[in-house]
Amino acid sequence: METGRLETFADGVFAIAATLLILNVDVSCETPCDLRAQVLHAWPSYVAYAASFVTMGIIWANHHTVMNQIGRADRTFLMLTVLFLMVVAFVPFPTRLVAEHIGDPLIANERTAVAVYGITFTLTAVMFNVVWFYASRGGRLLRADADPRVVRGISRTFVVGPWVYLGLTLAALISPKVGAIGFLLFALFWVIESSVFGRDRDVQDLEQ
Amino acid sequence: METGRLETFADGVFAIAATLLILNVDVSCETPCDLRAQVLHAWPSYVAYAASFVTMGIIWANHHTVMNQIGRADRTFLMLTVLFLMVVAFVPFPTRLVAEHIGDPLIANERTAVAVYGITFTLTAVMFNVVWFYASRGGRLLRADADPRVVRGISRTFVVGPWVYLGLTLAALISPKVGAIGFLLFALFWVIESSVFGRDRDVQDLEQ
Amino acid sequence: METGRLETFADGVFAIAATLLILNVDVSCETPCDLRAQVLHAWPSYVAYAASFVTMGIIWANHHTVMNQIGRADRTFLMLTVLFLMVVAFVPFPTRLVAEHIGDPLIANERTAVAVYGITFTLTAVMFNVVWFYASRGGRLLRADADPRVVRGISRTFVVGPWVYLGLTLAALISPKVGAIGFLLFALFWVIESSVFGRDRDVQDLEQ
Amino acid sequence: METGRLETFADGVFAIAATLLILNVDVSCETPCDLRAQVLHAWPSYVAYAASFVTMGIIWANHHTVMNQIGRADRTFLMLTVLFLMVVAFVPFPTRLVAEHIGDPLIANERTAVAVYGITFTLTAVMFNVVWFYASRGGRLLRADADPRVVRGISRTFVVGPWVYLGLTLAALISPKVGAIGFLLFALFWVIESSVFGRDRDVQDLEQ
Repeated sequence: METGRLETFADGVFAIAATLLILNVDVSCETPCDLRAQVLHAWPSYVAYAASFVTMGIIWANHHTVMNQIGRADRTFLMLTVLFLMVVAFVPFPTRLVAEHIGDPLIANERTAVAVYGITFTLTAVMFNVVWFYASRGGRLLRADADPRVVRGISRTFVVGPWVYLGLTLAALISPKVGAIGFLLFALFWVIESSVFGRDRDVQDLEQ
Repeated sequence: METGRLETFADGVFAIAATLLILNVDVSCETPCDLRAQVLHAWPSYVAYAASFVTMGIIWANHHTVMNQIGRADRTFLMLTVLFLMVVAFVPFPTRLVAEHIGDPLIANERTAVAVYGITFTLTAVMFNVVWFYASRGGRLLRADADPRVVRGISRTFVVGPWVYLGLTLAALISPKVGAIGFLLFALFWVIESSVFGRDRDVQDLEQ
Repeated sequence: METGRLETFADGVFAIAATLLILNVDVSCETPCDLRAQVLHAWPSYVAYAASFVTMGIIWANHHTVMNQIGRADRTFLMLTVLFLMVVAFVPFPTRLVAEHIGDPLIANERTAVAVYGITFTLTAVMFNVVWFYASRGGRLLRADADPRVVRGISRTFVVGPWVYLGLTLAALISPKVGAIGFLLFALFWVIESSVFGRDRDVQDLEQ
Repeated sequence: METGRLETFADGVFAIAATLLILNVDVSCETPCDLRAQVLHAWPSYVAYAASFVTMGIIWANHHTVMNQIGRADRTFLMLTVLFLMVVAFVPFPTRLVAEHIGDPLIANERTAVAVYGITFTLTAVMFNVVWFYASRGGRLLRADADPRVVRGISRTFVVGPWVYLGLTLAALISPKVGAIGFLLFALFWVIESSVFGRDRDVQDLEQ
């Protein structure tokens, strides 16, 4: 099993799931209506779109880093990746829930929406761990020249992910808006952290 | 005709059709409503999403195994692949029927939904056989170094597929819920079987 | 400008536009309703799905044949390809019109739907000619080793396309159902013709 | 970080976002209705589809030209590209607003729709500049053999983009229809300009 086609399939699912998020951004405005008010009123759907798109971009980038260390694939790895992508492709649904119910007069609905959102990302992080530890445990599918420092770095970072998302989900059950802001800040943190922390590590030469 | 672009097109259709499945997962909840109850009540759409996504992942993985044994392509092979992908890309429709009608008060509607689902996957399996036997009969399009054991293994496994799906479809006509569980268990069986059975066969070296 | 990324973009648009066709296949069945009757009643949407998917598969395969003869690209070629893909990506809209209005009690609506369908495919054929003749006129962008027999064969076949689609569109204005059957038969003809006619021409070795 | 997978992801997002535009082209025509009148009446959605598809095709082509000059990537570059793609994938939303509200009896709604459209493309141009100047400033990520003339040409052209889109957005606030025509003309100008101006610069040999 070459990883080439696996990466094409994974890249396709990431790109499609991220781009489908825009279908959740909608404004219903039957004439006569005040479009300007409707567009401004839809702000939670823009925030939800941005948070999910950036988070999926980060997961995609991390998947890329992981695949760089992997030199072999077996059917189990393939099936685990399919299950991982199944959770990734699920993201547009909770994103729509959050877009539609942040600001819902019933706080219970806000809570439900953010909780489903948090559970989805917790599961994504769990499945990403399963994929990674299946491949790296005992060096099972790693490249012969995999960098042990990078491998340890991935393991150390990944193991934290599900707990952070679980924590944010629990925070969202107490206060939906705090939870929602937490998901945004965590995405932002990753963007900045990976830019600064990863600068030296990942610069690689691409010239053919 | 290179297979490279054929695989890109096929991977694209698989990835898009699988990711579009999420559009069938929907909860309509006009305010005021109880979002939590609606989200829980939509469980058949999650199950249908998972069953179809995993089944498509398996078909994609098998398509990959098949293409590894194929070294040439002609226009007939191309057109048969297009017809095969046409059935694959149809899957989101019966998945939506199942998502919406499992639990329908009219058992006749449940039966219709599961039957259309079963017929679609039976046709998928039939078309996959047509594609494979066109390519492998007399070694027509196989690679010069195709592994005869793998070729025989694919032929032996593939010929069973349509009959299993036909059987599940008939079971669904008698009892829709038994049929639906059957489709789920069959997908699960494939995930486990291919992981265990295929472990030795498919481990290949990916290092450049 | 490499053609590699151009082909990736084109393959993406073809695969997505073809797979999006399934969103037009829909059955609205609020409980209580007779799902079986609704599923059978939706037959025009299955026929429209199949006709459009197969036609797009054929156009994709022909685009592939064309790109095999092309060795250089300039910005004009790129922009003409974008305009060509714009028409290809438009196909889901007329397909939905046909799916919804074949069987419309008002024959004028049937006529409109099939006419828009026909005009779209006529434009697709026209744009494909523009792309091809821009690239091949005087050998402008052809590979140094382009096969003159294949180049002449493409030119001879392509020039017929728009006229056939224009003829079918005019037939559809007189009798929508005859026109619709004509589009189906033409797609079928291409599948069979290209399989038989193209067999010797296109068999190529894919072994690395 | 190889740019290969980054380009696959970017090409995927461009192709999907452009192809999703067709979902905004819709005609609701419950029987009995006059489909022909409805199809003609929907002209703003065809124009919006064409303008956005062509503009995205141009941005995709320019992204390609930019990536040809880039030889290395770091995490910051990756994250900036994700943010750039997030704005690109947003385009279907303002395109729908324009399709639905050009011709709105309330001119304020026309104005809002075109303004959101303009702001989105202004942001796209700004983000494209951020990506480019991050990579090219001091030659940070450029190829060793990057052509200084092409690099200067890109910088000179890109810096103008946001101001043109900002100008068109302001024009749209005064007169929505003038603004809309401006966006169309600017896309057309780019198609023609890049075809003529870019002819000598970009002809490259693709033969393997």
